[in-house]
Amino acid sequence: MRTALLIGIGAGDPTQVTVQAIEAMSAADAFFVLDKGATTGTLKGIRQEILDAYAPGARLVLVPDPPRDRDAADYVAAVDDWHDRRAAALAEAVTREVPDGGVAGFLVWGDPSLYDSTLRIVQRSPIPLQPRMIPGITSVQALTAAHAVLLNRVGEPIHITTGRRLAEDDGRNTVVMLDADCTFLRTARPDDEIYWGAYLGTEHEILLSGTVGAVGEEIARTRAAARAEHGWIMDVYLLRRPEDGEAQGG
Amino acid sequence: MRTALLIGIGAGDPTQVTVQAIEAMSAADAFFVLDKGATTGTLKGIRQEILDAYAPGARLVLVPDPPRDRDAADYVAAVDDWHDRRAAALAEAVTREVPDGGVAGFLVWGDPSLYDSTLRIVQRSPIPLQPRMIPGITSVQALTAAHAVLLNRVGEPIHITTGRRLAEDDGRNTVVMLDADCTFLRTARPDDEIYWGAYLGTEHEILLSGTVGAVGEEIARTRAAARAEHGWIMDVYLLRRPEDGEAQGG
Repeated sequence: MRTALLIGIGAGDPTQVTVQAIEAMSAADAFFVLDKGATTGTLKGIRQEILDAYAPGARLVLVPDPPRDRDAADYVAAVDDWHDRRAAALAEAVTREVPDGGVAGFLVWGDPSLYDSTLRIVQRSPIPLQPRMIPGITSVQALTAAHAVLLNRVGEPIHITTGRRLAEDDGRNTVVMLDADCTFLRTARPDDEIYWGAYLGTEHEILLSGTVGAVGEEIARTRAAARAEHGWIMDVYLLRRPEDGEAQGG
Repeated sequence: MRTALLIGIGAGDPTQVTVQAIEAMSAADAFFVLDKGATTGTLKGIRQEILDAYAPGARLVLVPDPPRDRDAADYVAAVDDWHDRRAAALAEAVTREVPDGGVAGFLVWGDPSLYDSTLRIVQRSPIPLQPRMIPGITSVQALTAAHAVLLNRVGEPIHITTGRRLAEDDGRNTVVMLDADCTFLRTARPDDEIYWGAYLGTEHEILLSGTVGAVGEEIARTRAAARAEHGWIMDVYLLRRPEDGEAQGG
């Protein structure tokens, strides 16, 4: 079993890398670049600059990227097929460059959880890869910092979407912050998936996930007990509605 | 004129601080803590740990926090009044501790643009403070990294909200990524505000903001010209609907 280490490296400024990311870089046997052909020049340069500064001498392996059908009628199916072909190309390169038990590194623009396909490709690799993720500053945060504005006014929700979906609004992924009342117990459906975390990144970190029907009450109990024990709590959760007509895959 | 330097310090893990944040810390004449009374112990400890590690010897000034009416019928008005009283207390401390032309530092949990009131307090300070923001890893990103999950499935939108608003969904703040078509020109209202940025954090950074009616076409033109010049573009924008019945204040 090998580890796939996905490291968020920020939105373009090499100093947006975190100390955690720098420490993680030293664990990788080699770094793999899955960049689309279009992202040349400056983008590759910043990535090399980051490795030179924080992980000097690290090996950078270019994985040839299969072409993508951008004019396909079925957008999701076309992306799906493309990810399969990328996964096969990646597995071949990792098998060659990283020993069993070793670490394959990926430097991901922004944050590896936000509109990035690296985790999807790792999860459908024909060789087993255990994912480990290091968060990074997103372009969303670089944007608000550059303008010195807030993302939200007091208590207002925020929507993050793509140009393709801007006209729609289907509420499939909802991040909830500042919810002392476990509101999901009243508003979510039993088959909605929930990913909950408290005291994230500290020694007291607690993680629970599953469907709201299966783990919802356990989260509420765990939250109340932890708050009583520590005197305070900081938690956040992601609610995800199942895809229509099919089970949600990994 | 003094600078208010708002530094995001991550979600709890002291190594989630960025290199940019560490470099910025050295510019502050003193740091000010606006923590609510409830956030004691561990949270204060992590903040002190960050200063000890990255800005040893830095001065930490506690600003007494006025009490907040959490049972008020009008939630927004109550928060508004509370921020005014916090701003007055802060201005008094900054005037005393930071010379004219100096820098007042604030270590903000998560990211200073996401559900944090520090910028609001700085903007309503009775003494002029020029804000400067340094992005930080949010609890949202710490959550998805800890669970090794993506925020979204292919192309799906994401909603970030508070427990209080989970049952509603009013689309007031929309972040749009991956929009090669400037979809806002078709879908946004002329009086919607837009904050646009490209090549964020790099030497080619471009920022434009205003109402869509005033700057929408200029953004589309600027985007096309920059893409032609550099051969690629990475951009993102925030759309904000005006508040009902009143002008949007600063």
